[in-house]
Amino acid sequence: MNRAFFYGIGVGPGDPELMTMKAVRLLGCCDVVAYPTNVNGDSFALSIAQEVISSNAIHLPIFVPMNRKRDLARKAYEIASQHIEQHLLKGRSVAYICEGDPFFYGSFAYLYAYLRTDYNIGIIPGISSVMACSAASGKPLAGRNDTFKIVPATADIYNIKLALQQDDSLAIIKIGRHFEKVRSLLCELDLLNQAMVIESATTDHERIYKVADWQGETLPYFSTILVYRGAEVW
Amino acid sequence: MNRAFFYGIGVGPGDPELMTMKAVRLLGCCDVVAYPTNVNGDSFALSIAQEVISSNAIHLPIFVPMNRKRDLARKAYEIASQHIEQHLLKGRSVAYICEGDPFFYGSFAYLYAYLRTDYNIGIIPGISSVMACSAASGKPLAGRNDTFKIVPATADIYNIKLALQQDDSLAIIKIGRHFEKVRSLLCELDLLNQAMVIESATTDHERIYKVADWQGETLPYFSTILVYRGAEVW
Repeated sequence: MNRAFFYGIGVGPGDPELMTMKAVRLLGCCDVVAYPTNVNGDSFALSIAQEVISSNAIHLPIFVPMNRKRDLARKAYEIASQHIEQHLLKGRSVAYICEGDPFFYGSFAYLYAYLRTDYNIGIIPGISSVMACSAASGKPLAGRNDTFKIVPATADIYNIKLALQQDDSLAIIKIGRHFEKVRSLLCELDLLNQAMVIESATTDHERIYKVADWQGETLPYFSTILVYRGAEVW
Repeated sequence: MNRAFFYGIGVGPGDPELMTMKAVRLLGCCDVVAYPTNVNGDSFALSIAQEVISSNAIHLPIFVPMNRKRDLARKAYEIASQHIEQHLLKGRSVAYICEGDPFFYGSFAYLYAYLRTDYNIGIIPGISSVMACSAASGKPLAGRNDTFKIVPATADIYNIKLALQQDDSLAIIKIGRHFEKVRSLLCELDLLNQAMVIESATTDHERIYKVADWQGETLPYFSTILVYRGAEVW
């Protein structure tokens, strides 16, 4: 691994075997490994990658409060980027690992914004949970001339409805406590039976079922709903 | 590798190191490897994976004519699935390799439709060229509440225009000879300077430039245009 490089490394959706050869090589020789944690200090990204990280690597857990007060998150990313910078200034390579892909709805983009102008950057794409959900559910995402949209359940309800009306294929990500809002829309548009829930794809907790079959009011954060409305030309 | 399993294996965007550990493991012990070829017998998927495929594997190249006559393609997929089936009936494991991800605008979905009901199937997701293009261009694809749409340049021009007007982030794939149509739209919507072309991401032929800087009338088939219109909250 090059010295004083800041890497954003996607470690994929959950199954450690879905890491790329490149991610494994770089994590095996990085000086510092940084990763997002929850409030308890647990890190999903670390749990995926831990077996391949160099035993000599310095660990740098990063906790960012996830709530509506964006100033708190911004401050946390700023401080984290300063910590990373201190390592880079000592000539160390730093790998920030993220579940899925680093540039696809991930926290890496914030650190990247702080550090990109002054340091060497390497971005290693990872398998997105969206592709993993499609594989797990046994339904192709899109083909031929299909349009395919990804929309976070946190988005404006108008945008979700628009996608459900216009696009051939749709992935609604980060479902969590927004499930009821999404279910109501699917019901209104008569799509309940075409909508699949995929929880924690490729992990030991993977579960797959129709939205129509789920009676609960919420879903885990790492849940995705896939809806295919296209012509299924395959 | 399990016997009599039919695998759809994504081998990623081009750099062999962006194959997953799982793809590499399965390709190292498959009995038969099948792959799409062009009319000259060349296979991009094979060029990515060839170093890791078992030297004992039987090769099964599959040529599918790509033109507007869908019947010809359908017939070719039907015949190919029969060839694959003959191997499966002999208890052999067959791995069909595809660039990118097997369920994301790929040819695997057609073979899968023929074989899914009668055989064991394994689908191994791969790094999509869309994520690879984003990494190569150094621009995040989407964050927070952004909507992100993928639309093939072969789609109806109305759908492409709608996406350029509505969505925060957009990937227009399979550009090729549809470049002029896309450029005109970008010009009309004053997005020429926000639109990046990425050719053959992660390969030796990778090139990245603004649409505004390209004077040609076409682009290679494996070109993607990324447009970001969101708020860039990172």
